[in-house]
Amino acid sequence: MPGHYFDCNATTPVCEAASEAWVRASLKHWQNPSGLYRGAGMTRRLLEELRGELAGMLEVEEEEVVFTSGATEANNAVMEYASRSGGEGVFAVISAIEHPSVREAAEKWFGKEGVRELAVDQQGKVCLNALEEVLVEGAVGLVSVMAANNETGVIQPWREVGEICRKRGVPYHCDAAQWVGKASLAGLGECDFISGSAHKFGGPKGVGFLRVGGAARENFTSLVGGPQEGGMRAGTEDYPGVLAMMVALREKQGDMTAERLEGCLLERRAFEKRVGEDLPEVKIIAADAERLWNTVMLILPLSGPSNLKWLIRLDRLGFEVSTGSACSAGKGNPSHVMEAMGLDFDQMNRVLRISGGWQTEGKHWNALVDALLEVWEELKSGKRMEKREEITPSL
Amino acid sequence: MPGHYFDCNATTPVCEAASEAWVRASLKHWQNPSGLYRGAGMTRRLLEELRGELAGMLEVEEEEVVFTSGATEANNAVMEYASRSGGEGVFAVISAIEHPSVREAAEKWFGKEGVRELAVDQQGKVCLNALEEVLVEGAVGLVSVMAANNETGVIQPWREVGEICRKRGVPYHCDAAQWVGKASLAGLGECDFISGSAHKFGGPKGVGFLRVGGAARENFTSLVGGPQEGGMRAGTEDYPGVLAMMVALREKQGDMTAERLEGCLLERRAFEKRVGEDLPEVKIIAADAERLWNTVMLILPLSGPSNLKWLIRLDRLGFEVSTGSACSAGKGNPSHVMEAMGLDFDQMNRVLRISGGWQTEGKHWNALVDALLEVWEELKSGKRMEKREEITPSL
Repeated sequence: MPGHYFDCNATTPVCEAASEAWVRASLKHWQNPSGLYRGAGMTRRLLEELRGELAGMLEVEEEEVVFTSGATEANNAVMEYASRSGGEGVFAVISAIEHPSVREAAEKWFGKEGVRELAVDQQGKVCLNALEEVLVEGAVGLVSVMAANNETGVIQPWREVGEICRKRGVPYHCDAAQWVGKASLAGLGECDFISGSAHKFGGPKGVGFLRVGGAARENFTSLVGGPQEGGMRAGTEDYPGVLAMMVALREKQGDMTAERLEGCLLERRAFEKRVGEDLPEVKIIAADAERLWNTVMLILPLSGPSNLKWLIRLDRLGFEVSTGSACSAGKGNPSHVMEAMGLDFDQMNRVLRISGGWQTEGKHWNALVDALLEVWEELKSGKRMEKREEITPSL
Repeated sequence: MPGHYFDCNATTPVCEAASEAWVRASLKHWQNPSGLYRGAGMTRRLLEELRGELAGMLEVEEEEVVFTSGATEANNAVMEYASRSGGEGVFAVISAIEHPSVREAAEKWFGKEGVRELAVDQQGKVCLNALEEVLVEGAVGLVSVMAANNETGVIQPWREVGEICRKRGVPYHCDAAQWVGKASLAGLGECDFISGSAHKFGGPKGVGFLRVGGAARENFTSLVGGPQEGGMRAGTEDYPGVLAMMVALREKQGDMTAERLEGCLLERRAFEKRVGEDLPEVKIIAADAERLWNTVMLILPLSGPSNLKWLIRLDRLGFEVSTGSACSAGKGNPSHVMEAMGLDFDQMNRVLRISGGWQTEGKHWNALVDALLEVWEELKSGKRMEKREEITPSL
C-alpha cells in the first residue's frame, strides 16, 4: 500500500520548477534591487515584472501588490493598518473561524473588546445575516472573512461578504492562504486586502503577498525602514523567493481547468462515500457544505481513542495527516474552528484533518480508507494498544 | 581588467553550500514543523538543532534565538516591544547613524519626540559621553547602537555601550547586520537584543534572526497568530531558509582566522594608500577610524560631477559600487549618516561606498583603483561627458 502526504493545508513541498527557479535566480539575480548599477536594475525590473504578473492574475493594480514574508505578516499588517486608520472606537469584524494570525492580530490591534465575531452555521459557513446586522451598528473599521477555512475546507461566501462591505463602504480583508493555488482567482481582486502564502501552493516558505487596495496604499506599512515595496514593506526584496512563488503559482493556476477541479472533487467524494460505507462510526464535518476539493475533516469514532493515536498509527502506515491546523496542533489546544461549529470536547479530541494536493490521485484516497480501516481494526481489537499506550508523537 | 562586485554591504550572493543546503532541505525537510507525524517532527528537531547552533555561536540561550524574515523585521519588533514594555514617557536612545529600519521603527513606536539621538564624532563613531549623559536623565526604555555602520564601515563601541547599559539596567539592542559574517561574534551575546540578516553574509534573502535576551521573552512578539518560535514569531518556520543561513554563517565564521582578517584589512589599506597617491583629490571618510575590513567610503573630487556619473561609468567597467546604503540610494535622499558626520551637500553628492567581500582579493582592489583613475581621467577630459549627460541609472 503506497503511503501519501495528506497535510497540504499545513504546507506543501516546493515544486521542482519553483526550486529550480530559486537556484537560478540566486545565482544570477541576487543583487539588491535598490542598487543603481545595471545588475541591480535588472533584478528590480524582473521583480517588478513578477509584481505585474501577480497583479494581472488578481486583476488589481501593480502598485497594490506587496511581497511579504507570508500571510501571517500580511494579516498582522492589515489589522495594524485598520486599527490605526479607523479612528477611536472603531471595531474589527472577523469570522469565528479565522486563522489565528487574523484573530490574534485583530485582538492585538483592536483589543478584545474591539473585535466582533461573525458566527458560522453548522456547516462552518459564515452567516451573512450576522454581517448585515453588525454593519448596521456602524463604526466597523475592517471586515475579515477568509476565502476557505484551513481546517474544514469550507468555502466561505467571500464574494457576498465583499459585496456587502462595498455597499457599506467598509474595507474587506480576505485571507486567501488556503484558496490561492487551489481555486480560481477570479473575483478575488474585488477584496480590498488579500493575503497569500507561497508555501501553501508549492512555493517556498518565508514568501507571500498582500494586496493593498486603493487609498490604503498611502498610509500602509508592514515593516518600516526603507523605500522597498512602494514604501509599504521595508527590507531587501527577496527576488529568488518571489520568483519561486510565482513559478509555483503559474503551475497551479495553469493546471486548474474546470475538468481537473471537478475530477479532484469526485475523487474526494468517492473517498467520503467509502468512509461512510466502511467506517460508519466516522463522521464527516460539513459533509454537505461546498468545500475545497482537497480537504476532509473527520470526527473519529467516539467509542475509540483520541485523534493522536490515529495520527501516529496512520503515520506508521505512511499517511501524514493532522489533528487540526498546524498552528493549533502545536499548542495542544482544541480548535476554535471546531468550537465555533458547536463540537463538544469529546468530538474535538477526535477530529482528523485530511488535506490532499494536486499530486493526490484516486488510488491515494483509496489507500487512505484502507489505512483508516486497518487502524480502526487495530484500535478496536486493542491488541497492540496496551503496549503502545505510552507512544508520544514525534514532536 | 577583471570587474568585481564591491557592494557587499547591500547584499551578497548566496554561497554555493547555502544554495545546495536550501535545495536539499526543500526536498527532504519541507514539512511543517508543527505537524505531529515523524517527518514533521524531524524537521522540527533539525530546526531546533540550528537554533542551538546559533545560540552557541552567540553564547546565548537556545530559547532566546528567534528566526525572522531578516534584520528589518527584527529591528521593527524590538522597537515595538521596547515601547510597549517601557511604560508612559519612556524614550528610545539611538545613534545618529542607525539603519533606517532602527531609526524609523524607533520614531514609529516612541514618536519623534520620544527618540533621543546620540551624536557621532568626525570619524563616525558614537560618543559614549553622550550616552552617559542621556542615561543620567533617566526614563530610557532602550538603547540601540549598531555594531558597525553600513555606509562607512566604522566599528562602533558596542561592547562599551553594552557595559554602560548593563550598569544602568537599560536594555541594549545591537543591530549587527553588517557585523555578523565579517567579524568575530565574541561578546555579542552580552547585548540584550541582536539582529542579523542572512543575505549580508552569503545566506538567502528573507531570513534572519533576533536574540531576545532574558525576561523580554515572556512578552515579546514580532508577529502574532501561532505558537512558533516560542510564541515570539508566528508563521510557518522556514527550515530550508534557516539551514541555508546557518551553512553560510558556519562558512564565514569558520574562515575567520585572525590572520585572514588581518590580510583582508591590509589589502583594503593598500587600496586606500594607492587612492591617496594616485587620486589625491579623493578623500576617504573616517580614514583613521577602526572600520570593517571590507568597507571604504570615498568623497569624490568636488571639482568633478556627482557620484551617480562615477557609479555608471564604474559599472560599465565591471565594478558595482554604491552611492550610499541601498536603502537610501533608492530614495535619492542624502544619507543621514553623512549628515550626522557633518558633510555638506556637495560632499554628500560625491560619496561612493565600496564594500568588498571574502572573495575580494588584492588584485580586485588594485583593479578598482585603475578603474577609478580611468573614470576620473574621462570625467576630467569631459570628452565623452556631453554625449553621455543623459544616461540614467539602470533603476
